[in-house]
Amino acid sequence: MSTPSSTSTPAKASPSPHPADRLLEAIEQVGAPACVGLDPVLERLPSVVDPDATPVHRIKTFSLAVLEAIAGRVPAVKPQSACFERYGAAGVAALACVVERARELGLVVVLDAKRGDIGISASHYATAAADLGADWTTVNGYFGPEGFDPFRHGRGAFVLVRTSNPDGGRLQSLRLADGRSVAEAMGGIVAEAGDASIGRHGYSDLGAVVGATHPEDAARLRAAMPRQILLVPGFGAQGGGAEDVRPLFDRNGRGVLVTASRSVIYAFDSDGAGWSEQVADAADALRSTLGAIADAAAEGGGP
Amino acid sequence: MSTPSSTSTPAKASPSPHPADRLLEAIEQVGAPACVGLDPVLERLPSVVDPDATPVHRIKTFSLAVLEAIAGRVPAVKPQSACFERYGAAGVAALACVVERARELGLVVVLDAKRGDIGISASHYATAAADLGADWTTVNGYFGPEGFDPFRHGRGAFVLVRTSNPDGGRLQSLRLADGRSVAEAMGGIVAEAGDASIGRHGYSDLGAVVGATHPEDAARLRAAMPRQILLVPGFGAQGGGAEDVRPLFDRNGRGVLVTASRSVIYAFDSDGAGWSEQVADAADALRSTLGAIADAAAEGGGP
Repeated sequence: MSTPSSTSTPAKASPSPHPADRLLEAIEQVGAPACVGLDPVLERLPSVVDPDATPVHRIKTFSLAVLEAIAGRVPAVKPQSACFERYGAAGVAALACVVERARELGLVVVLDAKRGDIGISASHYATAAADLGADWTTVNGYFGPEGFDPFRHGRGAFVLVRTSNPDGGRLQSLRLADGRSVAEAMGGIVAEAGDASIGRHGYSDLGAVVGATHPEDAARLRAAMPRQILLVPGFGAQGGGAEDVRPLFDRNGRGVLVTASRSVIYAFDSDGAGWSEQVADAADALRSTLGAIADAAAEGGGP
Repeated sequence: MSTPSSTSTPAKASPSPHPADRLLEAIEQVGAPACVGLDPVLERLPSVVDPDATPVHRIKTFSLAVLEAIAGRVPAVKPQSACFERYGAAGVAALACVVERARELGLVVVLDAKRGDIGISASHYATAAADLGADWTTVNGYFGPEGFDPFRHGRGAFVLVRTSNPDGGRLQSLRLADGRSVAEAMGGIVAEAGDASIGRHGYSDLGAVVGATHPEDAARLRAAMPRQILLVPGFGAQGGGAEDVRPLFDRNGRGVLVTASRSVIYAFDSDGAGWSEQVADAADALRSTLGAIADAAAEGGGP
């Protein structure tokens, strides 16, 4: 598998070789487990962004401006691959530019691609993510470890365990004969596979996606996956709040990366030239909110 | 959601509007439920294929030649998106050319992309597949119907239910409290959602992926999904045989599309100029084998 060129690694950082360490240290440095979801949709772009350009060019310009606005304010960004793939080959090229710039700006990149396959196909998807420069990739665990292990090898993977959408419960909430939910069983598979690579902070290169919208499951899922960094969507716009994510932290206020997308990247209230300052302010607000939740979790004790 | 231009629809066909009918009629016309998996890997290409070109160009040239060899011999082709995405934007552009040519040649295109997401991201993936020209797309059902319904709307989707890889059983074979396996529960979700759109031959635009390597599950999965066309990988190279796929057919010898990849596209025994005739011969052999299995299923009675 190829690795990204060293020129795309930010010069100021000296990243740990283990992906979990690098992510946790980036969170530590900024002071909050905050990740901005970069889900650019043409209809919601500020009208001042390249109004006469092609759709894919506007998406790219907007995304690059968002990166400038959030860099240094949050430790990580999560580009949504679908928003770029929707424009075919040109969209994939734009995504590559966006990921490259994010890394230049020192952001940890979580590629939200939700890929999953087996054998050589899984390896191909992993290579594509690595060539793009993704530090972590979201993956589908339905195939078992064969589907997600190729995404490790010096990078990290977040396996879908409990998704934030209402329909996700249709399968994920079903009860097994042993009393666990399907999501907990998936978590168990992830935890077991994850033990093969643990960084010096005690976390694995194999994390899990656990939505902020299921507080009733949070403690059980954290207990099933003690060494998994949890990528937590659904905070803010999707309804998850502080009380929903707090049980996911460990007793040191660590082990979580919370994502917010629309509430940050569309935070502008006018189409004017100042839109990106409002995005920066929203990123600051997200950092403050999540920093406080992490601090409270550390004081109150997690699992 | 956009639709492909009418110029990419083969002139000779007058396709039914319902994707299940179109697929079943294509199978009927050729006489066998055979689908060639197009998983081109650089290391396995015949050396005579564009030896001095770039990797992605060689992949494309090979794929186009395979399409010429198999057109008219099998009803459908299943391009593996990962094999193209591995080359980034250039690979996606090559995939678009390959899908367009497959449709010109009258092949039903099953895009093997295994996408899955929610909300606008799911819609974007579905749009990308439609813009490419895919008739059907493979999708991940872990999100529930919200994840796969966007792929319908005049096209079809095959949801991953029971995959052919050994690791797939880690989650999919677990027993629920009600006695079903996780795969059967996924099948139940697919069957219920699929009833919203049934073609005149009695099959839904929502199919399911069921590997040929689990004969013990075959009858139960078919019973759980009576109106799903089953996309069956794992035949041939992965070990599935005639007895493994026969229980998946309905009593008319219908309702199944069996895929074979390596045993067809790499059927050449030398690197010489005649490699594509050997691929054509392998496609003919696949058609004969599967035609006979379908006939036997019709005589012997399925469920």
